[in-house]
Amino acid sequence: MRGVERESELGRIDRIRRLAGAPRGSGVVLGIGDDCAIFRQRGATEDLVFTTDMLVEDVHFRRETHRPEDAGWKALARSLSDIAAMGASPRFCLVSLALAPWADTEWVDGFYRGLLRLARREKTVLAGGDLGSAAKVMCDIVVCGSVPRGRALRRDGARAGDGIYVSGALGGSALGLSQLDSSQPDLSKGAGKARRRHFKPEPRIALGRFLREKVRATAAMDLSDGLSLDLRRLCLESRLSAAIGAPPVFPGASLEQALHGGEDYELLFTARERTRVPGTFEGLPLTRIGTMRKGRPGAVFLEGAASTEGAVSLKGAPLPPLGYDHFRKP
Amino acid sequence: MRGVERESELGRIDRIRRLAGAPRGSGVVLGIGDDCAIFRQRGATEDLVFTTDMLVEDVHFRRETHRPEDAGWKALARSLSDIAAMGASPRFCLVSLALAPWADTEWVDGFYRGLLRLARREKTVLAGGDLGSAAKVMCDIVVCGSVPRGRALRRDGARAGDGIYVSGALGGSALGLSQLDSSQPDLSKGAGKARRRHFKPEPRIALGRFLREKVRATAAMDLSDGLSLDLRRLCLESRLSAAIGAPPVFPGASLEQALHGGEDYELLFTARERTRVPGTFEGLPLTRIGTMRKGRPGAVFLEGAASTEGAVSLKGAPLPPLGYDHFRKP
Repeated sequence: MRGVERESELGRIDRIRRLAGAPRGSGVVLGIGDDCAIFRQRGATEDLVFTTDMLVEDVHFRRETHRPEDAGWKALARSLSDIAAMGASPRFCLVSLALAPWADTEWVDGFYRGLLRLARREKTVLAGGDLGSAAKVMCDIVVCGSVPRGRALRRDGARAGDGIYVSGALGGSALGLSQLDSSQPDLSKGAGKARRRHFKPEPRIALGRFLREKVRATAAMDLSDGLSLDLRRLCLESRLSAAIGAPPVFPGASLEQALHGGEDYELLFTARERTRVPGTFEGLPLTRIGTMRKGRPGAVFLEGAASTEGAVSLKGAPLPPLGYDHFRKP
Repeated sequence: MRGVERESELGRIDRIRRLAGAPRGSGVVLGIGDDCAIFRQRGATEDLVFTTDMLVEDVHFRRETHRPEDAGWKALARSLSDIAAMGASPRFCLVSLALAPWADTEWVDGFYRGLLRLARREKTVLAGGDLGSAAKVMCDIVVCGSVPRGRALRRDGARAGDGIYVSGALGGSALGLSQLDSSQPDLSKGAGKARRRHFKPEPRIALGRFLREKVRATAAMDLSDGLSLDLRRLCLESRLSAAIGAPPVFPGASLEQALHGGEDYELLFTARERTRVPGTFEGLPLTRIGTMRKGRPGAVFLEGAASTEGAVSLKGAPLPPLGYDHFRKP
């Protein structure tokens, strides 16, 4: 098991949340702790949701392996995925980009081409940003979305007994990344799909709206850091625990990759036990993987699925939150 | 004169603006090219303005010379200064912070303490953000502000014959920075003030509102990259040229520092010839430095002030835009 030598990301976010205090009387109806902040303007019929996500060279992409178009696409897709998780529609984005000395005009144009291709498809206006220089390329994107007043899907709305669901299959991005690291590239069809999953993630905007309007999901979030860590976060916000079985595994990926691999950008959501959740949405499978339970907030138990690799995911044992944490050393 | 080997910042921003296209039908009423983007929500009586600014280790601050509290203060002050330039009131901010391995919990706490001290004073709620890791510390802050519908101060509103004004005195931050670089620190009183100007810039929020409500300024922007470059930007957006005399110089600073030094965060604004602009606002001098003129858009002429250093600012000659540009090599 990996050691926790430095304060974890969750711990750091909690510290900042305490320092910041409650956002009283400002129009901010939901602050730190969800996929997006929610802002309510006087007189407006819609709430605005805001998210910000960084893309860092050598953390989220590499100059050698990622085309600039893919880096630009991914930078925006990360934030759009948070908008999808709230059941919102994207409106505009602001892009801050710090350029390393190696990033020439050609690279910058490619980056914006990839970003704007996704932005146009999802009707997201590039409204502004900041340009600067740094030792490594670094991008931070804010997206503003809108959602009918009081109707945003949040992490804190799940109740005991609610079913837990995921869209698609998990572990594909982790598989794609591992193939990238391997010296012998796998040229099979499934491998291509996994690489595509890693390079060009698909934000589930239409699914998010469907979950809000039709399914009336009780809580939702996107899977950016791995199911084990993200479900823990949803449980913490809803002050519940969860019991799950094995999630749907991306073809070729391992159960470990599906449980702990990050950057799948599928949606994790909960719905009332009585809700009939369809098996697919626009061809994308929606799979029930477990149930929200009373119990120690944040605890996730893996049941009915034993891992071949043993210690990490013992049958019926608490699932350690091994998803991606920037501040945990391996 | 410095050479322009790589594409300039203005050139890059123009390219991105062309790639992005016009923000039609999205609620975005002003996109790339001003201090803030402007967003108008259906039914709302106020417009929202958005700005984003990066603070990069070894570009905007140094680990050795800047206390974490000062880095946090400065990170937010940069964005608040853009809000001030629109005549808006800040509402909330989102903070993305990528941490280098050296940045321990103590540093992070100090950073947020400095940031939140300014945020509380200016009634700006910390509503969310992102945490990540990188080789060097990097912070990107988005601030949302509000302003009565259609009343934001923009860069493109100046007309020929309008007076050009600046608040305060210029060159202080450049002087403070140069003292930092010097091996023999200047311990005089003026030197302390210059260092303070560099380390803890003051966003002119109250002044911005005053300019919008009482002075009815025709255009405004903040001085972040130096008067010569920033006034050129205002002229380009308003499609005019400008003739100015020497601006008020910060005690101890040179005329060159006042003309081209960045990070003063004073306001540059224009007002109708007939407008009576008071000589001070809350003790801060407001000084007329010139007049907007028809002519080649973006051209700035320095009149009535000769520099001792010659070539840079010859009397009556066009003033080269030598302010801070991330992409120009010295």
